[in-house]
Amino acid sequence: MGNTNRQWRLVSHPDGMPEEKNWEMSVGSIPEPGDGEILVRAIYLDVAPYMVGRINPVLNYTAGVTPGDLMVGAAIAEVVHSNSPSFEPGELVLNSNMGWQDFATASPGAVRKIDPDVAPPTCWMDILGGNGVTAYFGLLRAAEMKPGDTVAISAAAGSVGQIAGQIAKISGCRPIAITSSDEKIAYCRELGYDAGVNHKTEPDLAAAIAEVCPNGIDVYFDNTAGPILDAVLQNLANFARITVCGTVSLANRFGQPDIGPRFMRQILVSRARIQGFLVGDYSQHFESAWERLLNWYKTGAIKCEYDVVEGFENTPKSFLRLLTSQNLGKQLVKVGDRSA
Amino acid sequence: MGNTNRQWRLVSHPDGMPEEKNWEMSVGSIPEPGDGEILVRAIYLDVAPYMVGRINPVLNYTAGVTPGDLMVGAAIAEVVHSNSPSFEPGELVLNSNMGWQDFATASPGAVRKIDPDVAPPTCWMDILGGNGVTAYFGLLRAAEMKPGDTVAISAAAGSVGQIAGQIAKISGCRPIAITSSDEKIAYCRELGYDAGVNHKTEPDLAAAIAEVCPNGIDVYFDNTAGPILDAVLQNLANFARITVCGTVSLANRFGQPDIGPRFMRQILVSRARIQGFLVGDYSQHFESAWERLLNWYKTGAIKCEYDVVEGFENTPKSFLRLLTSQNLGKQLVKVGDRSA
Repeated sequence: MGNTNRQWRLVSHPDGMPEEKNWEMSVGSIPEPGDGEILVRAIYLDVAPYMVGRINPVLNYTAGVTPGDLMVGAAIAEVVHSNSPSFEPGELVLNSNMGWQDFATASPGAVRKIDPDVAPPTCWMDILGGNGVTAYFGLLRAAEMKPGDTVAISAAAGSVGQIAGQIAKISGCRPIAITSSDEKIAYCRELGYDAGVNHKTEPDLAAAIAEVCPNGIDVYFDNTAGPILDAVLQNLANFARITVCGTVSLANRFGQPDIGPRFMRQILVSRARIQGFLVGDYSQHFESAWERLLNWYKTGAIKCEYDVVEGFENTPKSFLRLLTSQNLGKQLVKVGDRSA
Repeated sequence: MGNTNRQWRLVSHPDGMPEEKNWEMSVGSIPEPGDGEILVRAIYLDVAPYMVGRINPVLNYTAGVTPGDLMVGAAIAEVVHSNSPSFEPGELVLNSNMGWQDFATASPGAVRKIDPDVAPPTCWMDILGGNGVTAYFGLLRAAEMKPGDTVAISAAAGSVGQIAGQIAKISGCRPIAITSSDEKIAYCRELGYDAGVNHKTEPDLAAAIAEVCPNGIDVYFDNTAGPILDAVLQNLANFARITVCGTVSLANRFGQPDIGPRFMRQILVSRARIQGFLVGDYSQHFESAWERLLNWYKTGAIKCEYDVVEGFENTPKSFLRLLTSQNLGKQLVKVGDRSA
């Protein structure tokens, strides 16, 4: 950081699991904000599983990143220069189109002003950002979660998972954490999850899930696909609902077929519903959901853990950390400090 | 038929694809109807894909048939003796609990009286029976089919498929037949299907479907699972809806894992919905659906083809015929004649 603009550019599509060598850091000059625009400087960069889809050449729900391009991603950023009457230097914004760089220009309509007195800056890229509404609409709308449901959640200690578990608990449900370490299970239990299953150590995951879900699973919030989904599909309650939110277990073979058992008979017999889910489809309802989430946050009903890696140079590494389940809570990269 | 009661009993669970040797014919005496009961004699026996689930020891949505038991199944039957004021000898009924036998007793509430002047007897075990409501609710409720949808249907010339295609056409949709022979495609085109794909001869089924569904598939009525479903999942329109009604392609490996590619990423990206479907969940709405179906039948908007095998002794053979896609239209077994 300083008078130059560091940038991480994609240099190659991954061949299987993304690797550090798929990006290259370059240094350029700081862009000039145009009429009515603002210049912002990143404080926290986001790294998130959806980025796997963006850096792969396979058709996805939105345009991908081509080698040579700046890597995409949101950031909590500070206004350093403003040509807009709506912004003052020193104010904080969530800039969804920041990219992995220090500085970006933006038009005021493209950023969301955030108030650090209401909630810490990190919250605005998490519970009060995309993760909050993803958990909220993924459970309450896509899965039509109802009080009394047994709600299994994969990547339960991750950014979306930790919020989903707490929303399920608040909603009178029984959240079950499926996650990758006993430490994460302990964290999930603290958050209010009723039970946890370690998918890395259980020799028979379907049986382990059956043990903690004796009446089957009513709602499954799927962040992973793969073997965890397989185990859940063998434990469906009648009229179960599955939200397909993420497929991070396929990160190392994006675009290649995922071969394994299919459970159509179980889906038929239990009259289960599997619903593909993109949170953007609910954008017209975000404001009211954020209001509710903020309220839960303020009253302490929802807590969030952050896993913050320091240093712009560690951005790709932090992303890979996330893809290999090493994070506990929302993974962020701290790349700068607030001025003053 | 005569003064004895022929019965087909299951003698063993199938090991893979069902075989004739899984049943044995025996001859017993004609049962006596009790107070208020009726005695009926079968005219048409039903054979249908759902029976695969009943003869396998794997957990299903309803109790299975144990070796030694009479094989289950519905029949169009004639009342031969009545101890009930509501029935006269010579009247026809649909007896869902007939089983594969000549004679059965029934309480009047357990059978449905049918009027052969309104529609031929066979219709009452087809369009005016379970198949009609299966197609109707599978499309209009489970898949929420809407005018303008491209609607792919597997086993398109089968009992449910042929009705589904015509309901789709009536509803302002574009039905696409996926079936196993060019003869069946020709039949489907006559019924009103807009296009057909032969899954036995197309070297690349996904590509063949893409050709006739250039904008993707909005609704898929799945009677088969397996490779046809795989091909459809690679052709989903945004917000596609899939009704999982049957899994006949798995008939030869019921209870064993079906290994193949999984398409969770396609489901997520297109926000598709997969809905397991059992028509019994809609039973409180059957009467109004049958009224509508009868109306379409009377006005000629819906036609049905029957594939009738003659002879009680051929019942298991007819069932296997169905499982190997040799039937065109609803498969039935004629086991007796109406008296007078």
